[in-house]
Amino acid sequence: MLIIADNLQITHPEISAAVEQFRIGPIQEMVSRCIEAGAEAIDINPGPLPKEAEKKMRFLVNAVQEVTERPLLLDTTNPEALEAGLKICKNPVIINGFSIEPHKLERILPLARRFDADIVGFLLMENGQVPFDETEQLNVAVELYRTFVDTGLPHERLIIDPIIAPMLWDKGMEHNRAVLSVIRMLPEVLGYPVRTIAGLSNLTSGHCPRAKRILLEKAYLAMLAASGLTMVLLNIFHRDTVKMTKTCTVLTNSKVFTWEEIP
Amino acid sequence: MLIIADNLQITHPEISAAVEQFRIGPIQEMVSRCIEAGAEAIDINPGPLPKEAEKKMRFLVNAVQEVTERPLLLDTTNPEALEAGLKICKNPVIINGFSIEPHKLERILPLARRFDADIVGFLLMENGQVPFDETEQLNVAVELYRTFVDTGLPHERLIIDPIIAPMLWDKGMEHNRAVLSVIRMLPEVLGYPVRTIAGLSNLTSGHCPRAKRILLEKAYLAMLAASGLTMVLLNIFHRDTVKMTKTCTVLTNSKVFTWEEIP
Repeated sequence: MLIIADNLQITHPEISAAVEQFRIGPIQEMVSRCIEAGAEAIDINPGPLPKEAEKKMRFLVNAVQEVTERPLLLDTTNPEALEAGLKICKNPVIINGFSIEPHKLERILPLARRFDADIVGFLLMENGQVPFDETEQLNVAVELYRTFVDTGLPHERLIIDPIIAPMLWDKGMEHNRAVLSVIRMLPEVLGYPVRTIAGLSNLTSGHCPRAKRILLEKAYLAMLAASGLTMVLLNIFHRDTVKMTKTCTVLTNSKVFTWEEIP
Repeated sequence: MLIIADNLQITHPEISAAVEQFRIGPIQEMVSRCIEAGAEAIDINPGPLPKEAEKKMRFLVNAVQEVTERPLLLDTTNPEALEAGLKICKNPVIINGFSIEPHKLERILPLARRFDADIVGFLLMENGQVPFDETEQLNVAVELYRTFVDTGLPHERLIIDPIIAPMLWDKGMEHNRAVLSVIRMLPEVLGYPVRTIAGLSNLTSGHCPRAKRILLEKAYLAMLAASGLTMVLLNIFHRDTVKMTKTCTVLTNSKVFTWEEIP
């Protein structure tokens, strides 16, 4: 499983302030810490960017790629910001992402073709709502896939995100169990080894002791790994969760076991 | 997932000595500690019992059922010992267990019928070897199931153990990945909600740091839980593994999430 840090995001007051003031120091420090903690890719999440979208995204992409050559995920719903970032990005890049919502099909999906980039496709319905049960999720996946290949993009470029729900949501438990089946079934349903991604931090919203949050993350992460998840987006400073990710990768991929592989 | 302590076993020098000398104290102390640590059932594993088999099993069952009313698993390949234990056991009881090896079909399986007891069926081939790949495991499961129902026992009494292999075995990784699929597929293959059991301690044999052992146990346990495992046999003093088990039970069973359910 590819480990992607979700720590570079606008909801962090320090990151938010650094972006507003175009101060490169806090951004690069955060990225260095993420790499040190085991991040194999960095998600750049500046939010919807209502003001100076393009300038801010350029600033962020440049700041990050001065520190690392690892893949970057450009994580915003703002098409102008995405375009500005894609234009200057030298690292491997993933657009994060589109869905079958009409404005995303129109404004975001074409960027994948134009920049020959990987792109995350969210399992969201046309109205932007989360499909709850397994059948609904698979229906959305099929529609997303068809729309994707109809644009002429090779299916290898598509990375499907089934959207982990907060456990505290009304049907969160049910939804997240369906997510496990959907990840497992996608390769058979779509007929090729579909890559998948999931944002683990979504799982544990609400106030709770940190130890419980980590425990829940680790348990669900191992279940995602067993389903065949390809990439996980997580708080890279949750050290035990990162260790669990590496252990799961050994369990799901290695041919021969050695204790050295376990962190 | 029902949590079964595997700690009451003859490989512990203290337990071994207590059994040899018929001293009840160490046995009951161990059982009390297991219950306190979260054991919902106790596996009584006195080994093959070459001498005084019946007397020793009676001694153990009596010692344990004076301390707890929870279910007991009688875990020996010795049919006389099993019979002696079953005769005096007042707690809910599970025979652990039989396989399609001829001598077990002949000597152990009939005890389930005679004592109207649940029984564990191991996925072992007729020659006692472990079937490695998924297809072989499922073939053995079908044969085990047919043999079982042919005796007139209701299928609800059967608990299938697909046998976790030590990771360090030659094909251990491959086998244990197949085990995950087999547990998931059994209800569909056999056509009813098959109960399953697995012995987690098997996974981590060989010398290794305790932290790595626990991490590996937790990761694989969550994968087993996602596959639908019904019962797990584990070292109940691995506190973090027990917490993980409880968390997995919440993730796989609960309708509504509350943080209080997470240990």
